[in-house]
Amino acid sequence: MLELKELKEQIDQFLEQQMPSDIDQPTLASSMEYSVNAGGKRLRPALTLTTVQIFGGQLNQNVMKASTAIELLHTYSLIHDDLPAMDNDDLRRGKPTNHKKFGAGMATLAGDGLLTMAFQWLTDNQLPTETQAELTLALAKAAGPAGMVAGQARDIEGEHQNLTLEQLRYLHRQKTGDLLSYAVLAGGIITKQDSTTKNLLADFGAQFGLAFQIYDDLMDVVGTAKQMGKAVHKDASEHKNTYPGLLGIQGAEEQLHLALKQAKKTQKKLVDKTGHDFSAYDQFLAYFKL
Amino acid sequence: MLELKELKEQIDQFLEQQMPSDIDQPTLASSMEYSVNAGGKRLRPALTLTTVQIFGGQLNQNVMKASTAIELLHTYSLIHDDLPAMDNDDLRRGKPTNHKKFGAGMATLAGDGLLTMAFQWLTDNQLPTETQAELTLALAKAAGPAGMVAGQARDIEGEHQNLTLEQLRYLHRQKTGDLLSYAVLAGGIITKQDSTTKNLLADFGAQFGLAFQIYDDLMDVVGTAKQMGKAVHKDASEHKNTYPGLLGIQGAEEQLHLALKQAKKTQKKLVDKTGHDFSAYDQFLAYFKL
Repeated sequence: MLELKELKEQIDQFLEQQMPSDIDQPTLASSMEYSVNAGGKRLRPALTLTTVQIFGGQLNQNVMKASTAIELLHTYSLIHDDLPAMDNDDLRRGKPTNHKKFGAGMATLAGDGLLTMAFQWLTDNQLPTETQAELTLALAKAAGPAGMVAGQARDIEGEHQNLTLEQLRYLHRQKTGDLLSYAVLAGGIITKQDSTTKNLLADFGAQFGLAFQIYDDLMDVVGTAKQMGKAVHKDASEHKNTYPGLLGIQGAEEQLHLALKQAKKTQKKLVDKTGHDFSAYDQFLAYFKL
Repeated sequence: MLELKELKEQIDQFLEQQMPSDIDQPTLASSMEYSVNAGGKRLRPALTLTTVQIFGGQLNQNVMKASTAIELLHTYSLIHDDLPAMDNDDLRRGKPTNHKKFGAGMATLAGDGLLTMAFQWLTDNQLPTETQAELTLALAKAAGPAGMVAGQARDIEGEHQNLTLEQLRYLHRQKTGDLLSYAVLAGGIITKQDSTTKNLLADFGAQFGLAFQIYDDLMDVVGTAKQMGKAVHKDASEHKNTYPGLLGIQGAEEQLHLALKQAKKTQKKLVDKTGHDFSAYDQFLAYFKL
């Protein structure tokens, strides 16, 4: 069983080696690779690959390709999110954002290329076609206009409105939760689990995703730019709706603990349902240090 | 056999009815639907559906959904192409461009949503999973960073360079040809043709695509804004590389005739190989009126 740190290394290496052969224009390649190789935490593909391992699956070339596709998609969402027309951020993972380095036109194309390439990687491998098709549909739903993109639209629209807690949860479920939910679910699709198990995996991912977003909001308030590798205190200055903004720091911390408690409950249900050892998920739940 | 005009009506209707249920944010929905329902010629899905019909396939709900996905993808490419950071166009199909109406942030998201939804539609239907997976891979390759997006990157990069005819052809093969090639190929994938036939279909699409791009360049020089529904004489003012710019109007017309001649040759090869009647393709070849 490879742990988070080793998985990150394998994912970094796979992305670096695999990308160049699928891009056929030099500046576009530089721009796409710049952001993908900027060294994120690789949480999403690591969630998929950990889940695959829990069910006894091998991390071969086909599984790596299908599982790292989500990192391409996640990176596209960051590049487009940072654009001048969106959040207008200059710094990401401690480096200039894509459009700061390559211009907004090329950054738009780099994002478009990564999003499209994600679906290429889901199907350009030797996994069974029913697995490829199921992954494609699940990712498209999670990332599309009823998932992540809807959450981003809601985020833009909500900037100058005061959302209720329920509205904020819904926004984040779409914007962050759906993709993290897919990340865990994908491990179940790849290893062909039954639908009850797949639903539990998706639940765990959604609960992890909620915790993740609350934590991110909290860090924007209490973290430093150096810790985060990006600008902090941006949310308040941009009138973003956040958990600490709505509930205060203590209230947001309570919500975070609640989400983690639910995720642990689902983790236990998965053990009961499948008989497998899900303690590898503890590495992800340990992410939230306050 | 439904003809081009009837196909366009069916496609318009299908898109209008199908889209709302897959979008979960009101402004995003308005923005996506605004551009998709702006009434394009629907050439790409019509090429797929015509090919399906030639091989005796039925235009049922599943085939309609998988075949109209390309129109979502094509529309995304227009929205992003028009953005201020790209071509900065104000007018498209005789109406304000998406970002003029919804702002550049929402227009970026509308494009992202349409691109993602295209892959959703390829897999959210009852076609066999091997067909869904084959369509997904073919579309991702055609539209991705070794296809359409690479062509767009090349276009941006080439604006202040003088390209050779060979470089210009390569750019357009990626930017326009690959997607039109996919449009024809998709009809062969849906009706499960052998690989020789699928290669011929892809060839026909690529040759049609080349003719299409030369024609579009010519119309930018000799057409009027009213005919075209968009600004003309833009290419020269933006130092775009074009066929008339490189070869003169007469030279570009010769290249157009050559591309059409090759497409007709491939059309005949398809008849010889399959025994089917490909005269329905004549409707598409009749598009190029000088």
